[in-house]
Amino acid sequence: MDDFLSGIERVRYEGPDSTNPLAFRYYDPQRIVLGRSMAEFFRFAVAYWHSFTWPGSDMFGPGTFARPWQAANTMENAERKADVAFAFIERLGAPYFCFHDADAAPLGETLDEAARNMDRIAGVFERKMQQTGIKLLWGTANLFSHTRYMAGAASNPDPAVFAYAAGQVKIALETTHRLGGANYVLWGGREGYETILNTDIGQELDQLGRFMNMVVEHKHRIGFRGAILIEPKPCEPTKHQYDFDAATVAGFLRNYGLEREVKLNLEVNHATLAGHTFEHELAYAGSQGLLGGIDVNRGDPQNGWDTDQFPNSVADWVLALWFVHKAGGLGTGGFNFDAKVRRQSIDAADLFHGHVGAMDLCARALLIVERLLEDGSLRRFVEDRYGGWRSGFGADILAGHMSLADAAARAHAAAAPQPRSGRQEYLENLVNRFA
Amino acid sequence: MDDFLSGIERVRYEGPDSTNPLAFRYYDPQRIVLGRSMAEFFRFAVAYWHSFTWPGSDMFGPGTFARPWQAANTMENAERKADVAFAFIERLGAPYFCFHDADAAPLGETLDEAARNMDRIAGVFERKMQQTGIKLLWGTANLFSHTRYMAGAASNPDPAVFAYAAGQVKIALETTHRLGGANYVLWGGREGYETILNTDIGQELDQLGRFMNMVVEHKHRIGFRGAILIEPKPCEPTKHQYDFDAATVAGFLRNYGLEREVKLNLEVNHATLAGHTFEHELAYAGSQGLLGGIDVNRGDPQNGWDTDQFPNSVADWVLALWFVHKAGGLGTGGFNFDAKVRRQSIDAADLFHGHVGAMDLCARALLIVERLLEDGSLRRFVEDRYGGWRSGFGADILAGHMSLADAAARAHAAAAPQPRSGRQEYLENLVNRFA
Amino acid sequence: MDDFLSGIERVRYEGPDSTNPLAFRYYDPQRIVLGRSMAEFFRFAVAYWHSFTWPGSDMFGPGTFARPWQAANTMENAERKADVAFAFIERLGAPYFCFHDADAAPLGETLDEAARNMDRIAGVFERKMQQTGIKLLWGTANLFSHTRYMAGAASNPDPAVFAYAAGQVKIALETTHRLGGANYVLWGGREGYETILNTDIGQELDQLGRFMNMVVEHKHRIGFRGAILIEPKPCEPTKHQYDFDAATVAGFLRNYGLEREVKLNLEVNHATLAGHTFEHELAYAGSQGLLGGIDVNRGDPQNGWDTDQFPNSVADWVLALWFVHKAGGLGTGGFNFDAKVRRQSIDAADLFHGHVGAMDLCARALLIVERLLEDGSLRRFVEDRYGGWRSGFGADILAGHMSLADAAARAHAAAAPQPRSGRQEYLENLVNRFA
Amino acid sequence: MDDFLSGIERVRYEGPDSTNPLAFRYYDPQRIVLGRSMAEFFRFAVAYWHSFTWPGSDMFGPGTFARPWQAANTMENAERKADVAFAFIERLGAPYFCFHDADAAPLGETLDEAARNMDRIAGVFERKMQQTGIKLLWGTANLFSHTRYMAGAASNPDPAVFAYAAGQVKIALETTHRLGGANYVLWGGREGYETILNTDIGQELDQLGRFMNMVVEHKHRIGFRGAILIEPKPCEPTKHQYDFDAATVAGFLRNYGLEREVKLNLEVNHATLAGHTFEHELAYAGSQGLLGGIDVNRGDPQNGWDTDQFPNSVADWVLALWFVHKAGGLGTGGFNFDAKVRRQSIDAADLFHGHVGAMDLCARALLIVERLLEDGSLRRFVEDRYGGWRSGFGADILAGHMSLADAAARAHAAAAPQPRSGRQEYLENLVNRFA
Repeated sequence: MDDFLSGIERVRYEGPDSTNPLAFRYYDPQRIVLGRSMAEFFRFAVAYWHSFTWPGSDMFGPGTFARPWQAANTMENAERKADVAFAFIERLGAPYFCFHDADAAPLGETLDEAARNMDRIAGVFERKMQQTGIKLLWGTANLFSHTRYMAGAASNPDPAVFAYAAGQVKIALETTHRLGGANYVLWGGREGYETILNTDIGQELDQLGRFMNMVVEHKHRIGFRGAILIEPKPCEPTKHQYDFDAATVAGFLRNYGLEREVKLNLEVNHATLAGHTFEHELAYAGSQGLLGGIDVNRGDPQNGWDTDQFPNSVADWVLALWFVHKAGGLGTGGFNFDAKVRRQSIDAADLFHGHVGAMDLCARALLIVERLLEDGSLRRFVEDRYGGWRSGFGADILAGHMSLADAAARAHAAAAPQPRSGRQEYLENLVNRFA
Repeated sequence: MDDFLSGIERVRYEGPDSTNPLAFRYYDPQRIVLGRSMAEFFRFAVAYWHSFTWPGSDMFGPGTFARPWQAANTMENAERKADVAFAFIERLGAPYFCFHDADAAPLGETLDEAARNMDRIAGVFERKMQQTGIKLLWGTANLFSHTRYMAGAASNPDPAVFAYAAGQVKIALETTHRLGGANYVLWGGREGYETILNTDIGQELDQLGRFMNMVVEHKHRIGFRGAILIEPKPCEPTKHQYDFDAATVAGFLRNYGLEREVKLNLEVNHATLAGHTFEHELAYAGSQGLLGGIDVNRGDPQNGWDTDQFPNSVADWVLALWFVHKAGGLGTGGFNFDAKVRRQSIDAADLFHGHVGAMDLCARALLIVERLLEDGSLRRFVEDRYGGWRSGFGADILAGHMSLADAAARAHAAAAPQPRSGRQEYLENLVNRFA
Repeated sequence: MDDFLSGIERVRYEGPDSTNPLAFRYYDPQRIVLGRSMAEFFRFAVAYWHSFTWPGSDMFGPGTFARPWQAANTMENAERKADVAFAFIERLGAPYFCFHDADAAPLGETLDEAARNMDRIAGVFERKMQQTGIKLLWGTANLFSHTRYMAGAASNPDPAVFAYAAGQVKIALETTHRLGGANYVLWGGREGYETILNTDIGQELDQLGRFMNMVVEHKHRIGFRGAILIEPKPCEPTKHQYDFDAATVAGFLRNYGLEREVKLNLEVNHATLAGHTFEHELAYAGSQGLLGGIDVNRGDPQNGWDTDQFPNSVADWVLALWFVHKAGGLGTGGFNFDAKVRRQSIDAADLFHGHVGAMDLCARALLIVERLLEDGSLRRFVEDRYGGWRSGFGADILAGHMSLADAAARAHAAAAPQPRSGRQEYLENLVNRFA
Repeated sequence: MDDFLSGIERVRYEGPDSTNPLAFRYYDPQRIVLGRSMAEFFRFAVAYWHSFTWPGSDMFGPGTFARPWQAANTMENAERKADVAFAFIERLGAPYFCFHDADAAPLGETLDEAARNMDRIAGVFERKMQQTGIKLLWGTANLFSHTRYMAGAASNPDPAVFAYAAGQVKIALETTHRLGGANYVLWGGREGYETILNTDIGQELDQLGRFMNMVVEHKHRIGFRGAILIEPKPCEPTKHQYDFDAATVAGFLRNYGLEREVKLNLEVNHATLAGHTFEHELAYAGSQGLLGGIDVNRGDPQNGWDTDQFPNSVADWVLALWFVHKAGGLGTGGFNFDAKVRRQSIDAADLFHGHVGAMDLCARALLIVERLLEDGSLRRFVEDRYGGWRSGFGADILAGHMSLADAAARAHAAAAPQPRSGRQEYLENLVNRFA
């Protein structure tokens, strides 16, 4: 650990003029923005999997990172990994971390073994959390890597796999509860299909709906007060994933009576893969009261896979944070870096560059959003545009006081509606004035 | 008209060995397949807009077709168009047609004018339908071309545009009712946004939900017994369309209490644009009891726009019809050719080639589905795969009799679940054996 | 004209603190950056087609703009259009314009008529150019809209169409020459195919190669000293366009002996459609000595069609201008706004917002590039990375002094090469520090 | 080995009516089609990597296959793998195999070790090839998996990596020569860049050009008479790969004087990723005399990654083989199955299903092409379409006898060219009549 991080100091806020690549120029944790400290607004979390478990592999080559603790998947190495992880997060200055069960400790081949190892690593985590003040944003169970899940976890044709998944989630949820986790996340990486030829979609959706209800019931049984979050993604690893995007999951939740129990953890790259902008997903989830958390990263708009790069577009995050703010924030959720440094970024310094740049970029975007809100032009433009619906026959229509025939009669009698410019170029320039 | 179609005879079934490019080799309307005549299974419809109104234009050039009745948008030309259209459909041997109000007759600049012209063309249609036996599969209103709809119809920021749209739908729905139409379709081409900067998604969705309810209420008021169908599409002409795909519309319907009143009209090319296979959309809609109709065409998998080509892959349609059959058919819906010949296909003969090839391809695919069903292997494979959920603890889980802890306990006690091959290659070969 | 532009004043540079949406905050034409004035670095041009000819139509609706001079395609309206266009460009303060023959004047149905009308409008342009000081960046011929070109111009199966295209290019090239145009551009919108079933690719490429050579020979014959530029695009309107991307055109030029005669005019959106970043196309063309001009716009990364929006990402243009600078600039070429305001942006003010925002964004990006160059870190990083090739056996290899066996022998004898971080995150942060 | 293949017999031709899923229905090796036996036309090869080395892993989970010889990368396991591989290929009845050096034997960490192991496994291969009659279609070197190649092989910023790659290719090329290989293939998986920020494209292209020349020179030095083939791919694993597509590689070859020495090995899925149809790539390469081999597989048109599935569309292969035939075949090249069974297809039987289905599908497509050629309509249609270029002024233009002014003068004097239908729908139906 000491070797790995040697030569890298605690990252500090040095202000916009700093040329130190390992300093923050905008992220000043205690600075109050829009009524909260930056630290509290973002609740930044470092992801255990990408930063400490992934070895730098891709589909055409094994790991390039040569981290000592990755040599074998043992409990001893799990503890060494925890040493490095907490030391890294502390020097970075992020207040939270997130983990999958399988990244925290080896799960073995039986649930009993998984339970024992999770219990032991939870003890390690507790000590480290106490020593460093780092908190848990969320935990989750890896229900997609093991061969048993190759045809799905909750949506598996074999009920025994569903039961195994239930066992794994029970352990992960209870471990999250024990560690004071703020949320619990479900990502259904294999909850979908490879070929529709061997698949009964209705059957699988019912299994998934039942599973989610069982998780929610268990959460209440054990008194876990964090949010349960589902993370949409359209595909990869499967050909089609049931949690395709925000609107699909919203419909699923309503269909299985979960719309008041589960919220969404939205990931930038998953929005892109579904053919949406990230701000669309945020705005949609916000409009439905379902926004619960964010996985920060970026994909490559020109391919269809999950590159999980660190963000580097300020402009994108201005829009994202605009809609997070409009939605009233994330509740118990936060901003988790579900991002990995590139396979060629083999040094510890690269891991810092990735996180420091991303935290700073988010902070810079937030300061821009603050100024956009102070200016007020953008918000007013939108309010004015829909003004006709707040009174008169617009309000009557929305209130259900007019039939189709009533509305038609009004249109027959009225003058032709006049087109009004949507002012897209003006609005884009307006945002750029602040960005 | 006579000039336009001169030299082209009634298209007839001549059997698989025919080399006549303007004969059917598989589509034999009276042949009984899966318990119904082919004619009744498909209920093929010709689309008024692509085949008789679109002039062969694209974004980089005006029309190439030089059809005489397209010279000016007058009532006189509307009648000449009806002459050609019904003559074409009769010679083709399709039992149905579909229309937009704007394609049937000029709508003018006021609702009164639209009502008058629609009334007059409806009289023309009535006579022609009686003479030829051609029926109306569905009518719809064009709420996307006119400048007034540039920012949406029901989702427009201006309530006056909403009212105008209501007026137009009232006329189109009543005209459809008068003509004995089997369904009424809503396609929200502009119900979406160009830039999220000027848009309030929640507000617009509420407007759209109210509009749909008003349409459904009016349908019942006038005693129209056909289905109301929404046609999903993810984008184009807008950046984002609210009726993104089948799952999104299903969620929308539940959210606004419409899930028993409205079904889906699915289009191949729209599935593709949403990142789905067409069979996925069909299987999903079928699993939710929402499958109501089909727009037959194909897109280009390598671009992101709506090419609306005639289908030419038998294999694709085998899968599509497999899931239509699994869903129990389309109810009052049918197979409408929302397809246009290429801009270079300037002759009347090309219009026949497009339709004849497509009808024949669908028929050929249906005969293959019949043989696949008789063989039974594919269906049995899927049933067997999920067998574990029909009894034992699988059934208990689905029935809600087991908690997360119960399922977990079972998994702790049980032997490790054994992976089972998904047999994708075998299944693909199996289907190819019949195709 | 006066009506159209009424109320809009000359756009002026007001500095970064201006809140006037119709002022420049960064574009200060006389400011010297990297050794040249901004005006001379960019040579901004307004595109006649998008800004004055396109009516606001899309595939699902006709024009929304209702510009008076678009009511009919007459010479009288062509002159009214010229009035508006030059007045607009003058108030905007752009130094150049670009035109297609078909946008400048009606081409009629014969070449004689086209020649007469082009001659007349050229006289109008000459007067206006003299009055305003506005210059011609380039002219081009529209070889894609008319029905005769539906199957290609130079690549048409019919030699008579090739000859007609030759006639049209002759007029357009000579008109460009007469007006002192700095370049002449060829965009092969229909030079490709709709279906490979009816196409002989080798034959069509030979036709295209011959056509280009004829154009180059004619240029020399008439003494035109501007550059001949080809604009790559992968598809749309055709299924496949032969001038797919920069690398494809580079190969084409070499194959037909044109690599010293023709350069590339690169468009942002066309890069995107080909699956490239714009900076890739610029860097590639620069590396081959083929960079000749730029069409400024942006596409939507999430669809596959040519949205031609005005740019709004400063960060994207920092990268683009970085590689333009590395390539040594554009020679006689410039930055043409091949961009159109959205269909809902119906006011004259929107046309200004589009151009003002885009010019300012480019200027802002240029100032950032200047600072990146002054800093030197980015350039040095890349130079250092390839340092091993400038001496020793690296230089020997490139010079052709080592065989495969020689290199292999060296590797057998040498220590294992050591991986070195690519520092992607550091470099991205570095650029963001200046952006 | 015996365990692995137990219960699976030699696959035999049983004719179209067979319902045996592990029999050929169309692939009858000795049947003469278009003048050659099917066996000789296709020269089918099994890929060592996907079928025997890949463990069933994806980015979200490790291998599912549990093949005994994959437990550790040792020479002993390499020999066990060879046992299984040759037994499999023999039972399948494919005449060829293909391999990467790294798949054949462990390459260790030094070139000396690689040379020793390759020598030893070549001895094993020689014995097995003699025993079974199986031949080598091509060999290749894996220059993309090892960490040393993370930033490229020939295009690496470090000349020492270039030299190591030279060493590895020397061994692989000489091993291919020793085994009587029919071709040698180069696939530049890492010859591209991850971020253009740290990349000098011109420099890297020059390195690549020099490397290819060194390989060609070595081929001649050792007397290898097979073809050298480059396999284009646009991206993955890199962000951008220099060998983007057929046209890009053709331009590269001309630029570095290699156009008579190197041909193209085209892969279906790589065409798709580059935004092309496979038939486009074949037709283009054929038109340039560069078609040298085929990697048979399919991608998913709805994502952007390399799924390498076995083909299952007869219609696609009819088009592909049509253009292979038009190009005069593949010369020394063949049809290699660069395809892998799905991660859930864990049984040996699945490996047979994948290959049997694919070989049969290709054979079926070839029989259809034979009938299309006998019919002659398609070929004649295309010839007629370009008839105007074979005489008269069309021929004069192509021969360089007409200037732009000559062609223009002809067009001024001639009647307007008449548009002629492209007949796309007719041609699509025509092909479907035979398919």
